[in-house]
Amino acid sequence: MFQVDLSADLGEGFGTWDRGVDAELLGLVSSASIACGFHAGDPVRMRRTAALARRHGVAIGAHPGYPDLLGFGRREVAATPEEIAAYVLYQVGALQACAAAEGARVRYVKPHGALYSRAAREPAVAGAIADAVRRVDPGLALLGLAGSALVDAARAAGLRPVPEAFLDRGYAPDGTLLPRDRPGALLDDAGVVAERAVRLVRDHVVAAADGTELRVNAESLCVHGDGAHAAALLRAVRARFLTEGVAVTAFAG
Amino acid sequence: MFQVDLSADLGEGFGTWDRGVDAELLGLVSSASIACGFHAGDPVRMRRTAALARRHGVAIGAHPGYPDLLGFGRREVAATPEEIAAYVLYQVGALQACAAAEGARVRYVKPHGALYSRAAREPAVAGAIADAVRRVDPGLALLGLAGSALVDAARAAGLRPVPEAFLDRGYAPDGTLLPRDRPGALLDDAGVVAERAVRLVRDHVVAAADGTELRVNAESLCVHGDGAHAAALLRAVRARFLTEGVAVTAFAG
Amino acid sequence: MFQVDLSADLGEGFGTWDRGVDAELLGLVSSASIACGFHAGDPVRMRRTAALARRHGVAIGAHPGYPDLLGFGRREVAATPEEIAAYVLYQVGALQACAAAEGARVRYVKPHGALYSRAAREPAVAGAIADAVRRVDPGLALLGLAGSALVDAARAAGLRPVPEAFLDRGYAPDGTLLPRDRPGALLDDAGVVAERAVRLVRDHVVAAADGTELRVNAESLCVHGDGAHAAALLRAVRARFLTEGVAVTAFAG
Amino acid sequence: MFQVDLSADLGEGFGTWDRGVDAELLGLVSSASIACGFHAGDPVRMRRTAALARRHGVAIGAHPGYPDLLGFGRREVAATPEEIAAYVLYQVGALQACAAAEGARVRYVKPHGALYSRAAREPAVAGAIADAVRRVDPGLALLGLAGSALVDAARAAGLRPVPEAFLDRGYAPDGTLLPRDRPGALLDDAGVVAERAVRLVRDHVVAAADGTELRVNAESLCVHGDGAHAAALLRAVRARFLTEGVAVTAFAG
Repeated sequence: MFQVDLSADLGEGFGTWDRGVDAELLGLVSSASIACGFHAGDPVRMRRTAALARRHGVAIGAHPGYPDLLGFGRREVAATPEEIAAYVLYQVGALQACAAAEGARVRYVKPHGALYSRAAREPAVAGAIADAVRRVDPGLALLGLAGSALVDAARAAGLRPVPEAFLDRGYAPDGTLLPRDRPGALLDDAGVVAERAVRLVRDHVVAAADGTELRVNAESLCVHGDGAHAAALLRAVRARFLTEGVAVTAFAG
Repeated sequence: MFQVDLSADLGEGFGTWDRGVDAELLGLVSSASIACGFHAGDPVRMRRTAALARRHGVAIGAHPGYPDLLGFGRREVAATPEEIAAYVLYQVGALQACAAAEGARVRYVKPHGALYSRAAREPAVAGAIADAVRRVDPGLALLGLAGSALVDAARAAGLRPVPEAFLDRGYAPDGTLLPRDRPGALLDDAGVVAERAVRLVRDHVVAAADGTELRVNAESLCVHGDGAHAAALLRAVRARFLTEGVAVTAFAG
Repeated sequence: MFQVDLSADLGEGFGTWDRGVDAELLGLVSSASIACGFHAGDPVRMRRTAALARRHGVAIGAHPGYPDLLGFGRREVAATPEEIAAYVLYQVGALQACAAAEGARVRYVKPHGALYSRAAREPAVAGAIADAVRRVDPGLALLGLAGSALVDAARAAGLRPVPEAFLDRGYAPDGTLLPRDRPGALLDDAGVVAERAVRLVRDHVVAAADGTELRVNAESLCVHGDGAHAAALLRAVRARFLTEGVAVTAFAG
Repeated sequence: MFQVDLSADLGEGFGTWDRGVDAELLGLVSSASIACGFHAGDPVRMRRTAALARRHGVAIGAHPGYPDLLGFGRREVAATPEEIAAYVLYQVGALQACAAAEGARVRYVKPHGALYSRAAREPAVAGAIADAVRRVDPGLALLGLAGSALVDAARAAGLRPVPEAFLDRGYAPDGTLLPRDRPGALLDDAGVVAERAVRLVRDHVVAAADGTELRVNAESLCVHGDGAHAAALLRAVRARFLTEGVAVTAFAG
């Protein structure tokens, strides 16, 4: 009756540094947003992660970020929309080739970290990203925070917009994500997260940190792949979905 | 009667650092090998250079190198064939997207610097590169030093091999390029270079530094875009070609 | 009768990319602010530039910036004060060792680009930088925009504060520098620049872009080393100083 | 009666990527070789690791490597001796400042990974490193593989040479370390490692992979900080040392 996409951010190591448990998470999600080398990820890892995603039948997304390895792409960099467009082109193309080498295709694009937040609130940046994605391949979907400028820009560019919600991040009453250093920004209680997932799918509602009920129409639900509890959270969500009759399906073909 | 491709390496700046005179060279070559961000080049510059090449009707090639900005990709890095294949995938894909955004297509791949030299002599590296290129797009041509392992690997992989010769680099008697720090490694006499070009096209011969005549079947002739004299050399070559009836045409569609 | 320090930013290339005409500028300034590898500069170049500065009897300063080679340190990066302090420590220490290897000593620190601007207006960042400098060596002077938070922070930390003014940059009526993309932001008329230098030294006054006369007590006057006209501007300033009896002397021992 | 230095490589994360268990290892070693940002390590982490080492009373060493984050400094990069000298200067100085900010001092230098191996066998590289270290501070000790060119170069430069042996790495019969991809290259049996440590201290002997007994005069014994078993191995060594009456003391003041 109900269905939704479940995604995680994967391939977020660099060189000999590993993070997360990609193989485990790939058994639990329907979409994988793969880091593309600017804030995390490297060519060898991108190729391997794409191969792994393909083997699990998981849809592959490009997860481009700011060129800031030191800050893991979580710090704002005052790049211009023109620079950002080029950064997105570069990273999406790089992943496309790594995926192609494994017989896989990139299905969507989702900006990472500080770039994601900026694209949610700045129409010029959102527009630059949407234009870049459309120019690479108009068949790519563009994931953005439900209700954000990025979703609008995707629609305006003729791309398929995919609004998403976060299962393991706290919301402010205005519908934005709480900054990571605020109390309640990171959720790790599997029961709470699973309940949240069900309400998002069934009622299109999520509770902000202060209890306000926010209306959120999300086609995709995200759990961060680098969280220590990612696999446990996803398993709890999956279990509740089974009980509640929610099917997990990639939004992308 | 005779025809040949003329290429230069372009887009070899980084960020605010510029090098070469790309716009001028694009009026003189039929193919442009564009740096892809590892040894030089950056996303903004790649997109702009691709746009400029398209406007000049010049064929676009990807020019992937080692991840060594500090050494401009001219130092050997002991990467494994697996790592090299992924580096090539990544860089070629990145340029493909930057070019696609400008309505252009990448037609060929030519490794840069120390990677070019290694691919010329190590079949395992040459094979890894050819396999990577084929997996991205079997329609891409692969440029390599005439007579080298890379040309053989391109052929074996079912790619179009394009043997090339260098107009502004000295040759050792064994047909390899003289290392850049040797006397005679870099040629800057326009008359000598133009004469060399004509003999390569007409007689398939080039003189090594010691006078030995080497048999070289090259479909493409390269002048380095970062040389101070690149434009002057190319103009001299063009002038001689006019006199001698040699047409300059991209080998790639 | 009058005396002032003249500085330029030097060593701003990276790897095989060169910029500016360091050797020429070193004959014209009394202080050289040397890039330390984050926004520009590299170990080999830092050592060579330090050696060159020493040979010219020019005082050496560390010119640390944000870790942003792509943006040449001119883009704001939302690093925390703690991160910035560590970036300053790292870069200052790196230059100290490169200078020591050439029998030279670093005499002062001057932040670069977007970090300089941020330190001028954010006391927390200014304080973090001053604290870092003091911990490395309390004998180091700290250069900042005259009247800025960085000058205050240097004083509060017990460091020698050196207020500086820019000869080739336009000022806003509030005493800040005009952003580089505004009309009038970059001055290249040698006569105007030389006149400006004299008024700054003699009258402690500079005219803002709208004509407002700003009171500026500067001990050091800067011309950007990467400007195409840097040497010409400095020569004009030097010539006027000779006429007007202004001695050029490093503020630092 | 007997005494020896025990060291581990620490601070080997980068940005948000962590590796190893620095705090735990600092309770077990007498010397800490801290990564300096080229193959691993970053300014914030360097400062924190230095502070932590100081708190544990552990001697601090600089652990400079090739500029190769992607390869963790374990791949040979064909840098020239001049480049290598500058890389060492830069990294040692950077750590000195980070340590100074925490009231600590760098006591020694030990090259990392592929640079360590190259310095062990190439006198020109070993000499360039020793010269760089001496120019920064002739009071720094220089750690190198016992019997290697680096130890000789340290002595020739007037530095204190500290020959070291590896407790968790296999030796070839010629006294070099087995490459990491060979069987027997990495030892993780705590009993074997502890026995080895005792024999090295008491008998100056280590068994190569083929059983050959090698004579090794080492003043410092190293366990790699990134090994999963580092803490367990060090605890076993410490326990055996207690039994056998071997004191663990930093070679450096």
